Amino acid sequence: MAEHRIYLHDIPLDEAWSRFIRALEGAGRWDPLPGEVVPVAEALGRVTAEPVWARVSSPGYHASAMDGYAVRAVDTYGASETAPVRLACVPRLGTLPDVPRPAAYVDTGDPLPAWADAVIMREHAQPLGDEAVEIMAPVAPWQHVRPLGEDMVATELVLPANHALLPVDLGAVAGAGHTAVSVRRRPRVAVIPTGTELVTVEQAAAAGVRPGDIIEYNSLVLAAQVAQWGGAATRHAIVPDDFALIKAALQEAAAGHDLVLLNAGSSAGSEDYTARAVEELGELLVHGVAVRPGHPVILGMVGGTPVIGVPGYPVSAALTGEIFVEPLLARWRGQPPLEKPSIAATITRKLLSPMGEDEWVRVTVGQVGDRVVAAPLSRGAGVITSLVRADGIVRIPRFSEGVDAGQAVTVELYRAPAEIARTLVAIGSHDLTLDLLAQHLAERHPGMRLSSAHAGSLGGLIALRRGEAHLAGAHLLDETTGGYNWSYVRQYLPDLPVALITLVQRDQGLMVPPGNPQGLAGLADLARPDVSIINRQRGAGTRLLLDYRLRQLGIVPESVRGYAREEYTHLAVAAAVASGVATCGLGIRAAARALGLDFVPLEKERYDLVIPLAYLDTGPLQKLLGLLADARFRDAVAALPGYDVTLMGVRVQEP
Amino acid sequence: MAEHRIYLHDIPLDEAWSRFIRALEGAGRWDPLPGEVVPVAEALGRVTAEPVWARVSSPGYHASAMDGYAVRAVDTYGASETAPVRLACVPRLGTLPDVPRPAAYVDTGDPLPAWADAVIMREHAQPLGDEAVEIMAPVAPWQHVRPLGEDMVATELVLPANHALLPVDLGAVAGAGHTAVSVRRRPRVAVIPTGTELVTVEQAAAAGVRPGDIIEYNSLVLAAQVAQWGGAATRHAIVPDDFALIKAALQEAAAGHDLVLLNAGSSAGSEDYTARAVEELGELLVHGVAVRPGHPVILGMVGGTPVIGVPGYPVSAALTGEIFVEPLLARWRGQPPLEKPSIAATITRKLLSPMGEDEWVRVTVGQVGDRVVAAPLSRGAGVITSLVRADGIVRIPRFSEGVDAGQAVTVELYRAPAEIARTLVAIGSHDLTLDLLAQHLAERHPGMRLSSAHAGSLGGLIALRRGEAHLAGAHLLDETTGGYNWSYVRQYLPDLPVALITLVQRDQGLMVPPGNPQGLAGLADLARPDVSIINRQRGAGTRLLLDYRLRQLGIVPESVRGYAREEYTHLAVAAAVASGVATCGLGIRAAARALGLDFVPLEKERYDLVIPLAYLDTGPLQKLLGLLADARFRDAVAALPGYDVTLMGVRVQEP
Repeated sequence: MAEHRIYLHDIPLDEAWSRFIRALEGAGRWDPLPGEVVPVAEALGRVTAEPVWARVSSPGYHASAMDGYAVRAVDTYGASETAPVRLACVPRLGTLPDVPRPAAYVDTGDPLPAWADAVIMREHAQPLGDEAVEIMAPVAPWQHVRPLGEDMVATELVLPANHALLPVDLGAVAGAGHTAVSVRRRPRVAVIPTGTELVTVEQAAAAGVRPGDIIEYNSLVLAAQVAQWGGAATRHAIVPDDFALIKAALQEAAAGHDLVLLNAGSSAGSEDYTARAVEELGELLVHGVAVRPGHPVILGMVGGTPVIGVPGYPVSAALTGEIFVEPLLARWRGQPPLEKPSIAATITRKLLSPMGEDEWVRVTVGQVGDRVVAAPLSRGAGVITSLVRADGIVRIPRFSEGVDAGQAVTVELYRAPAEIARTLVAIGSHDLTLDLLAQHLAERHPGMRLSSAHAGSLGGLIALRRGEAHLAGAHLLDETTGGYNWSYVRQYLPDLPVALITLVQRDQGLMVPPGNPQGLAGLADLARPDVSIINRQRGAGTRLLLDYRLRQLGIVPESVRGYAREEYTHLAVAAAVASGVATCGLGIRAAARALGLDFVPLEKERYDLVIPLAYLDTGPLQKLLGLLADARFRDAVAALPGYDVTLMGVRVQEP
Repeated sequence: MAEHRIYLHDIPLDEAWSRFIRALEGAGRWDPLPGEVVPVAEALGRVTAEPVWARVSSPGYHASAMDGYAVRAVDTYGASETAPVRLACVPRLGTLPDVPRPAAYVDTGDPLPAWADAVIMREHAQPLGDEAVEIMAPVAPWQHVRPLGEDMVATELVLPANHALLPVDLGAVAGAGHTAVSVRRRPRVAVIPTGTELVTVEQAAAAGVRPGDIIEYNSLVLAAQVAQWGGAATRHAIVPDDFALIKAALQEAAAGHDLVLLNAGSSAGSEDYTARAVEELGELLVHGVAVRPGHPVILGMVGGTPVIGVPGYPVSAALTGEIFVEPLLARWRGQPPLEKPSIAATITRKLLSPMGEDEWVRVTVGQVGDRVVAAPLSRGAGVITSLVRADGIVRIPRFSEGVDAGQAVTVELYRAPAEIARTLVAIGSHDLTLDLLAQHLAERHPGMRLSSAHAGSLGGLIALRRGEAHLAGAHLLDETTGGYNWSYVRQYLPDLPVALITLVQRDQGLMVPPGNPQGLAGLADLARPDVSIINRQRGAGTRLLLDYRLRQLGIVPESVRGYAREEYTHLAVAAAVASGVATCGLGIRAAARALGLDFVPLEKERYDLVIPLAYLDTGPLQKLLGLLADARFRDAVAALPGYDVTLMGVRVQEP
């Protein structure tokens, strides 16, 4: 263990920020960055560092607003259908010709001859050869003329400073006579991944992931965040856990950047060197912030440059980016901190949260009927897929112990509200076919999403009852009739009219290591003392099947080794068998195949989609169900081992 | 005039789209673009062309979730404060050592030794030298362990196709073992500006803008739009109005791009060659769409490549981008068309709109009290600054004749709703100081905006009465008392408690050409037949001043030449004098100076900000008023010729 240890002292978020800001102000680093001049064509998305004043007027002259004839309005008075006025065609440029009632052809944008003060639309003029033109109605002075300066008058303010440039702004800046514009310099951010256990994804792809290896991707996420927030990130090579090397990397980066993100080593473990390095090179301001996930955050200053020690868990790292890096970059760009769009929602599950910490809970959000529901995702700080699948964040403040199921919450959204409205929410049993369905839906109907949460078959029915999902996948065996799903639907959803549409039939059986070393032939073998399993969670269809068959076989569940160890998906059970945690598990053939396991088939079970009638005929559901008749989708499912698509799309009548 | 003429036949927008889509389908161009493989680090914002499946599991092994000791849970049972259990420290790796109750130190992320099934947090273990460790509480199996596949199991779906990649997604893709990802190719879009009258902004900056010159910036706007919407734009050099050259440029561009934007020449004027070029090289599908602004849009196909003839007026061009280019690029990227955030608002003015056309009306939007108000901006298609200042668009559909003042409308926003909430709305008399105020506000308080609409002093009071503005600038001379503003406030806002805060005092006088060639000395000279003016609009303080003094002088307004010609700002009047449209105009010294005019000072007038008490003490107004005491702002105003800041910030008591 390290000799030198700096303990974590979690302080509240606002206190951490105010220490940080005081130090930044002290170092003269809490102001927007100075400007740099870039060509207008390269300025999209940049932020003006100075106001833009018009150098020229636009238009710079009185311009015709129409294709037609420039005239003196006074010459047109009295013209009518019955008494048309004849005008003499003259060249456009030149001084007033010595003819009565002159008219000069002009295209849109042409300057008006000096003698003219109005334009007659071509549609209202009848040429008489090339010499003359006849008009049936008068025009008023300045009609169809864009006067000098209509758009901008020289010296006017076109854009203030601190304005983020949109496409039309570039047009206005150029139209005001500027070839270039002064925009805030991009904040330069160094991202330094540290850790002896880290391998690049290139190394992992070439050599595989060995036990103890961790694929380094936090620097990818942090650099992409910096880019998204208008900064320029430099990704440093991985630095092993060597204090001298980390210190050297930090010192060098601090000298050449506006901000250094050191990831990880921000905790207080034996190889957590960040706090010590910051302390030796500069000032350690904060070690530990009372936020979750992400608390082992370090804030410090090295040579006048702010340093953020970013925690190693990927969710903590990404949220540290949102909480600390984004507001700092916004400040430097002269912009207010990002405000995500927010939406009011009902939380689906009780959430306990520690007093004294601000907690950011990842949720999926769906519009189900007239309710917006937010379903909490995994709170594990190592589960990056929970952030990938998150539609937003619910923030539970420091002095709250949590929220109750059904309580109203505010979700800060990662996606546009419109995208939420195009999301179908499936909660229930997991099946690989749902992944394929999500995949084909997104491909065939751009913008539509199937968000699928794994809660087991019964969990899905309960979610339907609570109005939290549009559909639920279920494969619930009725122990008395041998049929699937309907008896459970009647019991759990007595008042909710639903349709059952079969998605697929699939093989259930024992997943066993390659070669089936224990020679397992059926569930009776689970009673053997040398056999151990990983179980599925209560309410899962596979769990019901196991319990049903064990009872038929007269095996006491508690006598089965590993019966109490639960996983939530087929693939997780397969992974447990593959890693030797158990010698077998009940599940589907596809999962076994995916992880290179052998499979002992036991039954063919039916997997249905349970859909409330209220949603069945809506556009989104119909698009989803349309895929069940689609040859490409059916072929993709049929290609999965152990799947039978014969009944796919069939509506199952209530028996 | 052109020999060959193709007339415009405006067709409804939906009909134009369906013709376009049929042609694109026929040419096989209505599908998402194929994928190209890019390194994960370069994939931010790109759209997946194929689903991403996990290649590896993450974690790829059972990993410690804490710094602490890997143990067998069974060895810890029975431990308590009074009966601590002593464990023997062993090396982390290796097979189960031949000691009772082994424990191995692990850092977060370390693989669990094969014999261990749980981790005890370091904080709960007391080392006894290097040999042993004592614990006071038991752990359950799998506690503080991240099991293999907790985040992802190999073969699982990580991301579907058609997913726009966010920073965390890049982490998940890399974590799933991918070094690269297949993303939709960027649509290649050629932008060809055409027009003999066009000059580049570089040419204009070098040589000035001569009459007839138009600075070409539509290609900048269109290229920036394409970039913003995920495409790659190529800006072509300006092509003069020469049919052969335009045709050649179009043919070449169509061969090398996914889409060609030809700007302009899309109307039916003598030099509008686009329709003919498209017709000769391919198929002209649509010439004219019933949308406003923007109707002379051309849709066609050349060699299987879609071509859009974009109208020349900058507002029409930008909206054509939004209406036709964005949905096409979205389709090619496998994304739904952009949906702007929308907000319900009350429209401040009656809007007439032609039946038979979809009209897009630019509006500013402000949250004033508890109302969201949308104020229409200039509808001139040549006024790019109206798009720059627009907060959003109100769409008046084809079968509507318009909307009434006070009617509820939906605004599609260009800015985030949060930005709207940070906007102060000023309606009233224009003054250059307001530009400076907007400028300093944005600089000093990033994210805050002052949106200022010019409606004249009385117009501002009326806007306050209607609840459409937070403040109004006014310089209304009371003809009986010689005082400013209060008597008008009493008359127009009898029931609205307001404060008057002086912004500035400024010189009013006659703006005359350099050298004052007519030798004007005062308003009495306006009666001369050789003198002509440009007037300000009714309700403007300057107009009241003129009318008041003319009456004192006994001059009949109608006898003043140009009295009926109105402009809305001081600068516009100055521009009219500078261009010779009038020989003088009443206005402020700063405007005269800005356009190089001479100035005959007549009076010093007070310009106040009228602010309802209900807003006076709110944070945003206080920030604004704080600037009136700010040395930098006062210095900037005092530096303007003809401005006196002595009374700036003084609250004017009701007389």
